[in-house]
Amino acid sequence: MAVASSRVTPIDGGVTSPRGFRAAGIHCGIKSQAPDLALVVADRPAAAAGMFTQIATRAAPVVLNEAKLRAAGRAQAVVINSGNANACVGARGYDDARAMTAAVAVALGIDEALVLGASTGVIGRPLPVDRIVAAVPALVAALGSDSAAAARAIMTTDAFPKTAAARVDVGDGTITIGGMAKGAGMIHPDMATMIAVIATDAALDPAVLRAALRGAVDRTFNCISVDGDTSTSDSVFVLASGAAGLVPIAPDGERYQAFLAGLTDVAARLATLIVRDGEGATRVVEVRVTGARSDADARLAARTIMTSLLVKTMFHGAELNWGRLVAAAGRSGAAVDPDRIAVAIGEHWVVEGGVGRPERYPLAEPLLRAPEVRVTVDLGLGEGRYTGWTSDLGEAYVRINSGYLT
Amino acid sequence: MAVASSRVTPIDGGVTSPRGFRAAGIHCGIKSQAPDLALVVADRPAAAAGMFTQIATRAAPVVLNEAKLRAAGRAQAVVINSGNANACVGARGYDDARAMTAAVAVALGIDEALVLGASTGVIGRPLPVDRIVAAVPALVAALGSDSAAAARAIMTTDAFPKTAAARVDVGDGTITIGGMAKGAGMIHPDMATMIAVIATDAALDPAVLRAALRGAVDRTFNCISVDGDTSTSDSVFVLASGAAGLVPIAPDGERYQAFLAGLTDVAARLATLIVRDGEGATRVVEVRVTGARSDADARLAARTIMTSLLVKTMFHGAELNWGRLVAAAGRSGAAVDPDRIAVAIGEHWVVEGGVGRPERYPLAEPLLRAPEVRVTVDLGLGEGRYTGWTSDLGEAYVRINSGYLT
Repeated sequence: MAVASSRVTPIDGGVTSPRGFRAAGIHCGIKSQAPDLALVVADRPAAAAGMFTQIATRAAPVVLNEAKLRAAGRAQAVVINSGNANACVGARGYDDARAMTAAVAVALGIDEALVLGASTGVIGRPLPVDRIVAAVPALVAALGSDSAAAARAIMTTDAFPKTAAARVDVGDGTITIGGMAKGAGMIHPDMATMIAVIATDAALDPAVLRAALRGAVDRTFNCISVDGDTSTSDSVFVLASGAAGLVPIAPDGERYQAFLAGLTDVAARLATLIVRDGEGATRVVEVRVTGARSDADARLAARTIMTSLLVKTMFHGAELNWGRLVAAAGRSGAAVDPDRIAVAIGEHWVVEGGVGRPERYPLAEPLLRAPEVRVTVDLGLGEGRYTGWTSDLGEAYVRINSGYLT
Repeated sequence: MAVASSRVTPIDGGVTSPRGFRAAGIHCGIKSQAPDLALVVADRPAAAAGMFTQIATRAAPVVLNEAKLRAAGRAQAVVINSGNANACVGARGYDDARAMTAAVAVALGIDEALVLGASTGVIGRPLPVDRIVAAVPALVAALGSDSAAAARAIMTTDAFPKTAAARVDVGDGTITIGGMAKGAGMIHPDMATMIAVIATDAALDPAVLRAALRGAVDRTFNCISVDGDTSTSDSVFVLASGAAGLVPIAPDGERYQAFLAGLTDVAARLATLIVRDGEGATRVVEVRVTGARSDADARLAARTIMTSLLVKTMFHGAELNWGRLVAAAGRSGAAVDPDRIAVAIGEHWVVEGGVGRPERYPLAEPLLRAPEVRVTVDLGLGEGRYTGWTSDLGEAYVRINSGYLT
């Protein structure tokens, strides 16, 4: 998942790479030992936008963040705890979420309306908010230019912290975009509990920032899960400080396209890290559907393939049981003619006209054992296409998820 | 999954329990050693009906069977091989399927139009039909009153053969219904490769038999998978010999209701055996959704819960992480008010008004460790209800399905 643009230069870094941001991550006592409380702060109020899960059982912080961003389009701080999702706990979820953002507002001396809050972890248990509130002064005291501690403090089942950054040439100067993300579920509808915070020192109106965020997320985070909006807590935030000192980016034109490319690049790299960290995953599989009757059909087929347990276990075993790919496309609801389907592993077309080409299997099979696999399913019916990313399904996934509470 | 009717008496037995049927199961060489070819034969042409997968990539035998049953509504034999699904192999799939039923017709001395054929196993590999044809004389010679060998010969990843039978008091006498089934996938949309053959010595017109089959399947086999029609080969056959010597069962009235109850009972017990044999499964979970705005909403919520990987791994670990149930309902598309959801394990309501009742967790937790678990999710919005059955997801599932070809 890479974005090709001569204006975008990937760099090492994270949420503090853009000018005007500090971050911190500490242990507050929700988890037994690991860091579990993160904060990202802009030096002054920044344009802000967010995209949130559309699930019916949204966690309280999600509801509050959406309302704040809709009202103001600005924010100055994002506080995130891990270990507890503050979801499905009734009215007290709202009280606890407010207590968390109020404590940060007091410690920073800013308006609470400018503080966003998020929680990720177990659902259905009351948030130990007293521990969070008690730790906020230490959290604020820890703010600095290092982005690693914050990225680590938002992890739940993640095996590693996830950060990405890029410099973008917007013509009259250079802006920087940096972000962090957590998420290591199966990138499946019910478990893509994903939180990302992206910061930039570009200047944009909130409405322009919102449009850019939607464009970037639709091509990245939303391509690694079935609906992109299905846990209780999924949230992507972006804050634009304007601290690069350039004129605001207008909604169209080359400067906007350059910014969008940079935002998409950072989001794409964070999304790829989430797939790579799929619980127990050993490989990342790029699923391309081409030749569909429409883009919507291609999306249907790709997402059914990406979420098929039989397909995911096949990739775990690195076996060329391509019938599982064809069967998944066939049951997806997309228009499919079994006699026109073609399947490629990498460049090797192992199925043509719905029939296997066994002489090519020996060429394709070694590719299945690589850490990155590309599969193309061509439906032979039109011009529709879609590309998504998924991970394999291994025994480790079951181990992790059948003992999550303990 | 039990059917309460004073007219239905479950008995030991299988597809040869009704009068007028013989069966056989032998090894023909598709698998390396295990039985892989089964035959069920009625003494004379019988009324017949079938229900088949609606997937776009249907296997050749499915297409042929549907055409035969639509044309005639009668059949005298069903031949089934395991180890190869004869699916996704292009035009030769039809030739091979016809060669298989033709060989049986010749050996039995009957019209090929009366012979149904089915194949189950790996998709996308040419059927070694010569081995089947060569074995048909031995298969016919093995026909007898024992139903166990046939039930064994249709197994693929099944851990045990599945048979069920019942006697039904239809007023003027007793008829017998017996059947066999194979299927041990995750009871998931893409893997419920399920084949069932049910025989009865009742007399019914094909149209009446078809209606009864649909009624029985909708409450049983279709409640253990997401769509009930999503592998390349899923098929349920029923043959009615009339050999009990009673007058035909009319489409309504008490005799029909008694027959329907019996057919549903046999189908329900076969379906339960499939869930119990879910690859690597350790428990059967009955998922009841009540209080939905409509039955359709209840079905949406139940099926999302039944197929959630996080829910299924939770049941494997026997952990009361009820937030996964609520989140699955929340993302199902059903109308859900998070403040009205209630969740029970057995009789213990661990969630009320969307909030956990921790004092009841100790009562509910031991029930999660039982081989049969009942979960109720009440949405508190109306009268809609749906009940389905699912299995847990264990490491063994991954082992089985990541090494299926080897």
